[in-house]
Amino acid sequence: MNVENKELAQTVQELQERVDKLEAKNSNLTMVLFSGDFDKVMAAFIIANGALAMGKEVTMFVTFWGLDAIKKPTMGTAGKNILEKMVTMMRPKGPTKLPTSKMNFGGIGPKLFQYMMGKKNVEPLSSLIEMAREFGLRIVACQMSMDVMGIKQEDLIDGVEFGGVAVFLGEAYRSNTTLFV
Amino acid sequence: MNVENKELAQTVQELQERVDKLEAKNSNLTMVLFSGDFDKVMAAFIIANGALAMGKEVTMFVTFWGLDAIKKPTMGTAGKNILEKMVTMMRPKGPTKLPTSKMNFGGIGPKLFQYMMGKKNVEPLSSLIEMAREFGLRIVACQMSMDVMGIKQEDLIDGVEFGGVAVFLGEAYRSNTTLFV
Amino acid sequence: MNVENKELAQTVQELQERVDKLEAKNSNLTMVLFSGDFDKVMAAFIIANGALAMGKEVTMFVTFWGLDAIKKPTMGTAGKNILEKMVTMMRPKGPTKLPTSKMNFGGIGPKLFQYMMGKKNVEPLSSLIEMAREFGLRIVACQMSMDVMGIKQEDLIDGVEFGGVAVFLGEAYRSNTTLFV
Repeated sequence: MNVENKELAQTVQELQERVDKLEAKNSNLTMVLFSGDFDKVMAAFIIANGALAMGKEVTMFVTFWGLDAIKKPTMGTAGKNILEKMVTMMRPKGPTKLPTSKMNFGGIGPKLFQYMMGKKNVEPLSSLIEMAREFGLRIVACQMSMDVMGIKQEDLIDGVEFGGVAVFLGEAYRSNTTLFV
Repeated sequence: MNVENKELAQTVQELQERVDKLEAKNSNLTMVLFSGDFDKVMAAFIIANGALAMGKEVTMFVTFWGLDAIKKPTMGTAGKNILEKMVTMMRPKGPTKLPTSKMNFGGIGPKLFQYMMGKKNVEPLSSLIEMAREFGLRIVACQMSMDVMGIKQEDLIDGVEFGGVAVFLGEAYRSNTTLFV
Repeated sequence: MNVENKELAQTVQELQERVDKLEAKNSNLTMVLFSGDFDKVMAAFIIANGALAMGKEVTMFVTFWGLDAIKKPTMGTAGKNILEKMVTMMRPKGPTKLPTSKMNFGGIGPKLFQYMMGKKNVEPLSSLIEMAREFGLRIVACQMSMDVMGIKQEDLIDGVEFGGVAVFLGEAYRSNTTLFV
């Protein structure tokens, strides 16, 4: 191979690596789960499960009200200050307690929806969350939101990672599709 | 052409095809229309019309409350069970009946907005939807949401497709930009 | 260099430029700020600041209720018609007046949050907005929303640009990540 060809071959190889990297984004999906409304959390986990079934790596960055969906039902108020205690008591704890964004009717709405979903063989939200995690969903809880609302690491379901906006952005830039839910 | 050059030329051609595919994403826009609020549906269809005017292919995956925006005003309750009848009666039917997310004032809000929009020559929502469809908007209604809420295919405006989260994800991975509204 | 090699080298150079362009999307983030809720605006500006700190160019297209976040507190009603006056009076003016989407409690919610944020050394929203702008955030206010609600250019904070959906879409197609908040 002459010198010119060698240089060209080198350039082509570099290009291949750069295109590999761009194409690799097709293997990833990133979501911000900001909402803690039952219906939106449902939508987020249906999308997550769909993407996982297609073999994608899915990262969910859970922040603000979204944290309600990954709280342990047993979360308590010990070691929290007065405002943190108040927020802890007033916010739902876990997927079975979330309100719907429409037609909540003081909490009857989510129960009716779960019932209607069951009749059509749609998995309940808690199963969707479990399924997604079994299929490898990566959940990153927003440390800053947790600090502000006095949520401790042990208040959230096990196996969750903790991080900041930089973790989210890092994943978003490795992903073709990023959604804010 | 010698053997080395032939191989290199082959590699370059493959690269071209891969880059073509990556660039083709610039021709597509995908949206999830989750919300059924007048103002958010407006925003979604203004973006859709803008993208269509720029020559892009736009797919809107309509789910949950978003389905209210593409219901026929004549949608009835025949053949539905009691809960489905209730949901049918309580949800708005079509773009002229949607509430706003803020300042709804029991339904006066959307009328005031339509009036203020008319004074500034902004098309009403129903025209925006019609326009988008004439320009080739592809609407895919979420079959699972329809099943759960007892919405039949004939309850939605004509020309809509029906599909699941896999259809949405398929489109999202062909698109540079995907929004959750 | 022979003719075949020259052609190949030319093709490779074109490919490099196309890949450069695709990779350049990694330097940009685009957001639609549709919501005017304190918590969502917070999330948007935390993401914006994070991306700016990572050296990205960030464009925020502010529309509908999102405009509340960039209003001058001194915004008045002079020269507005009766409906525009009404909307002006009823909507919050600036980041310190925004309601939260949950637990607003007639305006006490945001104050409690600011207090809890302060205790954890999280910057207040108004500082986050200022910081983002110092770091080069480009804010484009949606001219159509402004027209409909009777918001004049001088009603918004200084240094904001004005544009339509085409400006947003233009930026989105130069960006790897686009969020609708």
